[in-house]
Amino acid sequence: MFDFGDMVARPAGWLDGDGRDGEVVLSSRVRIARNLDEHRFTHNCDNEELSDILRESADVARDTSVFARHRFVRMGEISTLDRQFLAERHLVSREFLFNSANRALIVNEEEDVCLMINEEDHLRMQGFAGGFNLKKAHGRVRLLEEALAPGLELAYRDRLGYLTSCPTNLGTGMRASVLIHLPGMVHSKEINKLLDSLRKLNHSIRGLYGEGSEVMGNFFQLSNSITLGVSSESIIRNLSEMVTKVISFEERSREMLFRKARSLLEDKVWRAYGLLRYAHSVNTKEALSLISAVRLGVGVEIIPDVSISSLNRLLIYTQPAHLQMRLGKSMATEERDAARADYIRETLSRDTDQENLQEEE
Amino acid sequence: MFDFGDMVARPAGWLDGDGRDGEVVLSSRVRIARNLDEHRFTHNCDNEELSDILRESADVARDTSVFARHRFVRMGEISTLDRQFLAERHLVSREFLFNSANRALIVNEEEDVCLMINEEDHLRMQGFAGGFNLKKAHGRVRLLEEALAPGLELAYRDRLGYLTSCPTNLGTGMRASVLIHLPGMVHSKEINKLLDSLRKLNHSIRGLYGEGSEVMGNFFQLSNSITLGVSSESIIRNLSEMVTKVISFEERSREMLFRKARSLLEDKVWRAYGLLRYAHSVNTKEALSLISAVRLGVGVEIIPDVSISSLNRLLIYTQPAHLQMRLGKSMATEERDAARADYIRETLSRDTDQENLQEEE
Repeated sequence: MFDFGDMVARPAGWLDGDGRDGEVVLSSRVRIARNLDEHRFTHNCDNEELSDILRESADVARDTSVFARHRFVRMGEISTLDRQFLAERHLVSREFLFNSANRALIVNEEEDVCLMINEEDHLRMQGFAGGFNLKKAHGRVRLLEEALAPGLELAYRDRLGYLTSCPTNLGTGMRASVLIHLPGMVHSKEINKLLDSLRKLNHSIRGLYGEGSEVMGNFFQLSNSITLGVSSESIIRNLSEMVTKVISFEERSREMLFRKARSLLEDKVWRAYGLLRYAHSVNTKEALSLISAVRLGVGVEIIPDVSISSLNRLLIYTQPAHLQMRLGKSMATEERDAARADYIRETLSRDTDQENLQEEE
Repeated sequence: MFDFGDMVARPAGWLDGDGRDGEVVLSSRVRIARNLDEHRFTHNCDNEELSDILRESADVARDTSVFARHRFVRMGEISTLDRQFLAERHLVSREFLFNSANRALIVNEEEDVCLMINEEDHLRMQGFAGGFNLKKAHGRVRLLEEALAPGLELAYRDRLGYLTSCPTNLGTGMRASVLIHLPGMVHSKEINKLLDSLRKLNHSIRGLYGEGSEVMGNFFQLSNSITLGVSSESIIRNLSEMVTKVISFEERSREMLFRKARSLLEDKVWRAYGLLRYAHSVNTKEALSLISAVRLGVGVEIIPDVSISSLNRLLIYTQPAHLQMRLGKSMATEERDAARADYIRETLSRDTDQENLQEEE
């Protein structure tokens, strides 16, 4: 059995909240899709061909310096809970939860570069960075791509660029995205106007867990939607410019809220904090919504004793698989809601205690 | 202008929560109605006659040893806010809020005996005691009655007993009551059965502020409804027996709740505590409901750091007039909601700090 103990024990380093604009942008992520030229696309492969793709790719990947220290996880060999755990960390897609035979993940020790083998495309590489730093995330995944390319014959055509299983990824095969928190724009009701503009400007915006996922806690994923006829660099540049604008809109909304409805805002964020500090049962949806309010409170400096790093950690560790992996047992919904509340109380009271200690020093 | 400063500064001693069964019964109260034989009932009096009644009664009352140290308050000489303040302390009735000319209150320093002059009856005396102690409350008001009787010619008829303005008070003119907290019975839905039985057994049960007032926060006033053809002592004895039963029902309901729905209960009471500890705006109704939940949490020993005395204090001091008197200014609803939240936060954090200090010792 694969042991995820040390991953369970700590979140990925890029979640520690000290990235640029960390109060608004939680993380930056760049994904690149590639396929092997001599194989059919995954959905047309039989198990034998999938197995060939897996072996060929993994052999090359494990030899790269990017994966000098890595984990190699065959998805078919781990439990559903383990797979869900990896999905909650954004290391594998939801697709991997259900199709696991001949699928694998390779991830480096820092959890900032990973490779999924036999997802929608043969190879899906990801680079992560904390806060708003698409360049860093891109740099990480590009290192992997450059290391893989010499050892594998990738499907590339001069006029089309890299071939991908779904035509929306054709060309660069690249999707860059940021996970961004927009409570100011949601409260000021400007969010819908923003979403419309972003779509018109060929950007895509979705909920916390990708396509089709519900927007919860005012957390959004903002990404490019065009991959063809543009360079990787211009995708990163365009998205970065867009994110910079969205951050300034969000900051303006927060300032307005703070100036025009300060009492309401204070009450709202402190109530959320009070519930998180003391509730004994909290479901996922409520947790997201309360964490969102507290994060806003920290952003506008109403709540002093909570770190962005703790809030990022809460977002990851209050998810069902993380709760269960941490306690080392499978739990029903009710038990998870209690464990979630326990974990939140511990995390927030640790922040307060540290704050008190610092004051005493 | 009358100065209520020292009353504002501290609650009446009988609210300090150390009375018998203080976790369920907040206070015991006995009211006695009397009228002067040579005067018409209040509602038939002109101002001159009211003024005569006031003078005659006050002269006698102020000479009694019960009122050796007292306040004499002419209701017409104080502000509406002051009158509301006295009503919130249960020293005067709501009727006094609107009819104030030639009405007066005399109250002793401990605030456990008082006399309203020219309410529905010429004389309405009250005795108070903390927790479940009707005898003590009765003893206090009886002392006053015995002191007044020799100096005043009271309306008394052999077959009827003491005459009162409203026939429901005829005979003893006595109403004994307890303010009782029944969250267990409300949660277990047994409350309606209890209310029916009590009414059938000639007891009356109402909300926090007497007749017609809404039941809020699961606080009830339980009192006798028969005053005629029974002795004062048997009224006290019967009501005491009834209250003893109700307390045991309530305790059984709480035990059941604790055994059968402990997680739900813990979550509910801690959430209420979290909101009270951190909210920045709380209206009266929500305050009552949250205080009720915390009081239940303290009663079943889920919440350790809060004293019943603090909760009693909160019930009194979060009322509109108390908030305004304390801060020495008139406030609109919104401002009061904020001041209420501030007061609650201060009170509860003081309890926690004391608890922490004791732990360190």
